[in-house]
Amino acid sequence: MRLECNWIHSVPVSCVAHLNVIVAVFVYCLSTQTILGETREEEDEILPRKDYESLDYDRCINEPYMEVLEGMDNKKAKKYEAVKWMLVFAIGVSIGVVGLFVDFFVRLFTQLKFSVVGKSVEECSEKGCLALSLLELLAFNMTFIFIASVLVLVEPVAAGSGIPEIKSYLNGVKIPGIVRLRTFVCKVVGVLFAVAGGLFVGKEGPMIHSGAIIGAGLPQFQSITFKKIQFYFPYFRSDRDKRDFVSAGAAAGVAAAFGAPIGGTLFSLEEGSSFWNQALTWKVLFCSMSATFTLNFFRSGLNYNKWGSFTLPGLLNFGEFKCPDGDKACHLWTAVDLAFFVLMGIVGGLLGALFNCINKRLAKYRMRNVHPKAKVVRVLESLLVTMVTTVVIFVASMTLGECRDLSPPTTHNSTVLEVDNMDVNSTIRQFFCSNKSYNDMATLFFNPQEVAIHQLFHQDATFSPVTLSLFFVLYFLLACWTYGVSVPSGLFVPSLLCGASLGRLVANVLKINLGMHIYSGTFALIGAAAFLGGVVRMTISLTVILIESTNEITYGLPIMITLMVAKWTGDFFNEGIYDIHIQLKGVPLLEWETEVEMDKLTASDIMDPNLTYVYPHTRVQSLVSILRTTVYHAFPVVTENRDNEREFMKGNILISNNIRFKKTSVLTRAGEQRRRCQSMKSYPSSELRNVCDDQVPVEPTEEGQDILQQMLERRHMPYPNLYPDQSPSEDWTMEERFRPLTFHGLILRSQLVNLLIRGVCYAENQSSASQPRLSFAEMTEDYPRFPDIHDLDLALLNPRMIVDVTPYMNPSPYTVSPNTHVSQVFNLFRTMGLRHLPVVNAVGEIVGIITRHNLTHEYLVAKLRQHYITI
Amino acid sequence: MRLECNWIHSVPVSCVAHLNVIVAVFVYCLSTQTILGETREEEDEILPRKDYESLDYDRCINEPYMEVLEGMDNKKAKKYEAVKWMLVFAIGVSIGVVGLFVDFFVRLFTQLKFSVVGKSVEECSEKGCLALSLLELLAFNMTFIFIASVLVLVEPVAAGSGIPEIKSYLNGVKIPGIVRLRTFVCKVVGVLFAVAGGLFVGKEGPMIHSGAIIGAGLPQFQSITFKKIQFYFPYFRSDRDKRDFVSAGAAAGVAAAFGAPIGGTLFSLEEGSSFWNQALTWKVLFCSMSATFTLNFFRSGLNYNKWGSFTLPGLLNFGEFKCPDGDKACHLWTAVDLAFFVLMGIVGGLLGALFNCINKRLAKYRMRNVHPKAKVVRVLESLLVTMVTTVVIFVASMTLGECRDLSPPTTHNSTVLEVDNMDVNSTIRQFFCSNKSYNDMATLFFNPQEVAIHQLFHQDATFSPVTLSLFFVLYFLLACWTYGVSVPSGLFVPSLLCGASLGRLVANVLKINLGMHIYSGTFALIGAAAFLGGVVRMTISLTVILIESTNEITYGLPIMITLMVAKWTGDFFNEGIYDIHIQLKGVPLLEWETEVEMDKLTASDIMDPNLTYVYPHTRVQSLVSILRTTVYHAFPVVTENRDNEREFMKGNILISNNIRFKKTSVLTRAGEQRRRCQSMKSYPSSELRNVCDDQVPVEPTEEGQDILQQMLERRHMPYPNLYPDQSPSEDWTMEERFRPLTFHGLILRSQLVNLLIRGVCYAENQSSASQPRLSFAEMTEDYPRFPDIHDLDLALLNPRMIVDVTPYMNPSPYTVSPNTHVSQVFNLFRTMGLRHLPVVNAVGEIVGIITRHNLTHEYLVAKLRQHYITI
Repeated sequence: MRLECNWIHSVPVSCVAHLNVIVAVFVYCLSTQTILGETREEEDEILPRKDYESLDYDRCINEPYMEVLEGMDNKKAKKYEAVKWMLVFAIGVSIGVVGLFVDFFVRLFTQLKFSVVGKSVEECSEKGCLALSLLELLAFNMTFIFIASVLVLVEPVAAGSGIPEIKSYLNGVKIPGIVRLRTFVCKVVGVLFAVAGGLFVGKEGPMIHSGAIIGAGLPQFQSITFKKIQFYFPYFRSDRDKRDFVSAGAAAGVAAAFGAPIGGTLFSLEEGSSFWNQALTWKVLFCSMSATFTLNFFRSGLNYNKWGSFTLPGLLNFGEFKCPDGDKACHLWTAVDLAFFVLMGIVGGLLGALFNCINKRLAKYRMRNVHPKAKVVRVLESLLVTMVTTVVIFVASMTLGECRDLSPPTTHNSTVLEVDNMDVNSTIRQFFCSNKSYNDMATLFFNPQEVAIHQLFHQDATFSPVTLSLFFVLYFLLACWTYGVSVPSGLFVPSLLCGASLGRLVANVLKINLGMHIYSGTFALIGAAAFLGGVVRMTISLTVILIESTNEITYGLPIMITLMVAKWTGDFFNEGIYDIHIQLKGVPLLEWETEVEMDKLTASDIMDPNLTYVYPHTRVQSLVSILRTTVYHAFPVVTENRDNEREFMKGNILISNNIRFKKTSVLTRAGEQRRRCQSMKSYPSSELRNVCDDQVPVEPTEEGQDILQQMLERRHMPYPNLYPDQSPSEDWTMEERFRPLTFHGLILRSQLVNLLIRGVCYAENQSSASQPRLSFAEMTEDYPRFPDIHDLDLALLNPRMIVDVTPYMNPSPYTVSPNTHVSQVFNLFRTMGLRHLPVVNAVGEIVGIITRHNLTHEYLVAKLRQHYITI
Repeated sequence: MRLECNWIHSVPVSCVAHLNVIVAVFVYCLSTQTILGETREEEDEILPRKDYESLDYDRCINEPYMEVLEGMDNKKAKKYEAVKWMLVFAIGVSIGVVGLFVDFFVRLFTQLKFSVVGKSVEECSEKGCLALSLLELLAFNMTFIFIASVLVLVEPVAAGSGIPEIKSYLNGVKIPGIVRLRTFVCKVVGVLFAVAGGLFVGKEGPMIHSGAIIGAGLPQFQSITFKKIQFYFPYFRSDRDKRDFVSAGAAAGVAAAFGAPIGGTLFSLEEGSSFWNQALTWKVLFCSMSATFTLNFFRSGLNYNKWGSFTLPGLLNFGEFKCPDGDKACHLWTAVDLAFFVLMGIVGGLLGALFNCINKRLAKYRMRNVHPKAKVVRVLESLLVTMVTTVVIFVASMTLGECRDLSPPTTHNSTVLEVDNMDVNSTIRQFFCSNKSYNDMATLFFNPQEVAIHQLFHQDATFSPVTLSLFFVLYFLLACWTYGVSVPSGLFVPSLLCGASLGRLVANVLKINLGMHIYSGTFALIGAAAFLGGVVRMTISLTVILIESTNEITYGLPIMITLMVAKWTGDFFNEGIYDIHIQLKGVPLLEWETEVEMDKLTASDIMDPNLTYVYPHTRVQSLVSILRTTVYHAFPVVTENRDNEREFMKGNILISNNIRFKKTSVLTRAGEQRRRCQSMKSYPSSELRNVCDDQVPVEPTEEGQDILQQMLERRHMPYPNLYPDQSPSEDWTMEERFRPLTFHGLILRSQLVNLLIRGVCYAENQSSASQPRLSFAEMTEDYPRFPDIHDLDLALLNPRMIVDVTPYMNPSPYTVSPNTHVSQVFNLFRTMGLRHLPVVNAVGEIVGIITRHNLTHEYLVAKLRQHYITI
């Protein structure tokens, strides 16, 4: 069974024409999908879900915190800082070790697999028992993937690359289980087997996720999975500190994966940072450096027995791009090449968009048809993908390759320094080819992906255009199918490989058909960048990661331009793959900034005016009922301000101008609510009706003296609206239901539950000073999983006791005025990493509250549409 | 006159001991200075000056802006964005061209000088007319420096490196003239002559400054220096946009200077960024890339006739660090070396601190004794420095050098790719030495500084330890003296050279005396990093700049660790040189974050409670008098709220708990003022008395019915406190003077003046709707130099007319509550780039205002001390 080179032998130019047709079809498919999708996609669009908890990056400086602060001086602060440095170092080293672990076992298993199967192929090509070799390969791959898949069943969030989840986390959304120890174990072991199992997945994304988990977990000195792991180390148990460490960990993950400490730092800035914090960034960079060089140290030592040397680059490295010695006319790239890079960027953007489009449909299909079924179906799907991939690899390697001549050994292989720059000619596959030639398809398919990338980047000999096209198409489709299967799976390496084959194809055409004097490796690299950029749409960090991976600063400009063009082209059609998956998960992610148009809206347009509030001194009974009947995570602490409405009636002639101004400019809750409901009435569609509580009867006739009468009647009931049986009834007027409330602070659900559980309250006939006081440690002891109100044993509580919440509330959260424009609200919210933003009017009354959900793109767009209709 | 090698021939070990003594003396000097300085420096410490204007990064979304916004849709927004991209590209290219210009002329003049003088030396060494050569060199240098110095007289802010000024600008402080075209011309031409004149200055700092000016100026399409340059292009004429472009320009300046686009981006982030803005950072990186590669393109073309190639690195590059081919045992660095790097970091930090300490004293001396005198004195000082430097260079090169053997030519010079990696052996100086040897001192001193750095990094042959020590000491002292002289002068290259000589010395000792197997170049690099880090104390960006300059990612860890250690060591003694000069200028710079301890203070402790305010509708007369009698840049727009005090008296039993809470928690202006003045009385020293307006007589007896009486009396005068003759008089009570004011918005001085100049007002008997309306373009036309109130012709104004300021004020500035803690206030202020932050209490009354001056370190420290004394 000899390789038949003839039937696929074709004129390369016709092949390129062929490729052009494919591209044209792709573009057509893509554009029609988008045009048609305008209406079709809209209906099944997934809106941000409300059941994710947000993180709170703001400090709550209440009395317990102030007590801690009193004992704090600069010396202690420095000690605390030193501990942080040690922790980021520890995180970096741990991530380096994890990277080493994954790398070691992937190498071990892959070598085992390829040596056994390779030997079998060589034997069988004589005997004609290739089916046996295929079965061997299948057995290896299916076993590995089965293990990976089962691990993901144990902890479903360990599936996929983890980058969408980490991006969400750094954006401020807590996805359950995402930074737990169990997830870590499943992810690390799972990705090891997934990569070893020959799926078209990378280990880079999971490395980033693992890094983030280490960052989140290590400084906590406790574990929920293993309850026994618990030291007394109560520092850093807040969302704020945790998020800092997670960003350091994620950066170190990137650093270890690509040997790119600066790129890692920029990754965590790009994906996670809201404000620039020099001290934090410096720690993040240190953490990344620690991870990179820990990995390098051990790899140099273990793999090459060069202990004490650090010259080995990261897990994925691109080798050294350099012209062969003595070739004076050789340039890595020239100004002319830039034009081609721009074109490649466009193609990469289009293909990336197509990839994302197909993958999105697949993901939706999976959500509808695979996820609801028994979990074993997911394992079966993984095994199916594995089987198809394995068969494709095998058959393509055996039958579709072409024999190409090896280039004569050049002198530049004599450079000894790059110990890891494995000699590209040592990893070629010769299946069925003569001694001085090699099977190009097998070389790409029948090797680990990193080796294939090296081949495309550095192989001086050529690959046939047909092989490259076929390789690209097969790889594209399989990688697209694979991403989303229930195994831990990165996307970087498959995308790079896919793009590199395309780039190499372009290089072939330019070099051989047009006779241009170019450096093929550069084109392969740019192709890889273009496709990867088209898929993930990262910009700054990806540029730097690729520059660092090539260790060649002069590639800065071409890589950057390619990525820019690819991103712009891709953004024309859809979002990046990570954003698509975040959207499919319904995560309420906040963008970088709002669109300019959104400034037509103000805080009062987007806030939630329906408040559930507590008084500074509230009965236990009321608190319990509030906590049990609502799902809010924070409650404004308010006092009633009954004089406000009447105040407006007063004033005198002389300052009438000012009073007039004041009256119109102050938004009250009742006025706001009335405006809303009136605008709702004039609004034709019912689509947005739920925005307004349309249960409220608008009774303008009842105003005036009646209100006062009713208010006086209700005045004798303490906290009238806090008992469920006395909740706002329908016969209340607007002014009753939305009477003015002066804002004093914000208290979290977790804090209230904590107060109740620890019995912090006082009897009616006592002073509030008799209330027991909680320390900061007691307030934060249960972080991150605070007890639920339903865990509370009501029998232990005296419902008539009163809780003074003022020492525990956040007395000074950031607030905005109702006429603040959306961009300002958004900037404040996002930059400060807030969770709740009270809207307070000019006279200090709270009129609404803004949370993450009021600032998501979808919500703002809906509100803007409403705004256009009502004006 | 042969070189006498004998008298300085010494055993290297004794030399090292000698150096240790020097170091010990340095450390001793340093520590005593600091310990003694504790009291001595305190008194003549320069406090932040109040006469710098601040920049405003916040958006003022008033009615004119909303009009612009109404016409804005996504299409226009995209066009606007595209213009921004084109502008950053243009900025990048311009900076590249400027870099090219400077580089070209520096090379030209330097080559001219050294060829003429070199030839003369060679001739004279035979004839014994060396004095003539010295005179020639002196003539060249003095002429060049004279030109540079005169240029600085034209525009004094062009002196120095410009980094302190740019850092201040990016921090939000406008230093007059710093981004003007005239400054640009003086800086660029000045630095060219300063470098060519042989002073120990670099061109990197000035490049950064030039970049920032281009960034600030180009998008304005107008110039104040040349009034004729004025196109109609009114976009980007706001502090916000300008600051964005300045950060792009500064980054591009770094990028061009070091060939480090990523480092440049990080520089502008580190020095200037307050919040992370992905879109902006991406533009900054693009700008940096444009600058780098424009420079590379033209340099490749002009210098090597390789048009279309981009392989040449930036103006300052360190050449390629690589082990000679075939030397398998060679490592750039190993784990053992790291320990030495840490030690070198400590030494670098100490020396840097010493450098800063001496330079600070010099700068203070100059401020006291040179600056007040006639300007010509500054020119004379520059010429004196030049003369001394020239004589030192000449004499040292002629007499103090040692003849060292050249190493045999190695094969690694055959690598052709690095066209700029000038063969180190071609730039040696052989003065008085035999053919196969060279004069080591002359090689270092009698070459451009970049060549000397290359020699230290890459010369395989050795330098004598004595030469290196002498070179270091001379260079250190002269560079220290030079920085601050009235020429444009960077500090990077001298510091690098200084540090490199030290590093090379360490390498010599380790290699020759201890026989360790190390790579000398690495030690020279680390020495350079250590000293530079000790002087400038930059962290993230400097790490990346050095990594990019070496184009060797594996140097990441050692550079980072060295810089970290150097910074920590140096910070123990004093601040970085740029911060010292910023402080000497009295710029109210905001740090990264406040110290933890500062959280003991709240907004009410640090705010300025003395407000000058306007009403929504104010008479022209009042506005003019306010603007003429105050210096504030913004005025709160308020209405009076006379009911507030009485409101507290009401309430009933049932809600007494809440009312009680409310009463104590609401800070009023009167209460605040009383508290302040009472605390002042108990405060022993008078040092901080100006914080409290101690003119206010505290008359608690007058309270009660009296107040109401007085208020009623004054009610008949419209705007009683706004006429100068009716300004708060001493017989007013505290409650009168500080009566409650409801806050509605903030209006800037420039806006008010603009309204007055353009006659925006209405007559008393008309409605405010009759007031003419200004467009956004009219409001911003005069940016950045708005007319002064004193330019206003009062005859044109009817003082009885009323101005309605409400459409033009910022209706929704960010505000904080009085009990917000300082860290939160600081974060908000710094991150959002605010200029004025009103402090508003729980019932919406303004009680004070916070500006940059209330948040400087010095002010907070003083307030904290006061806090400790009063409690």
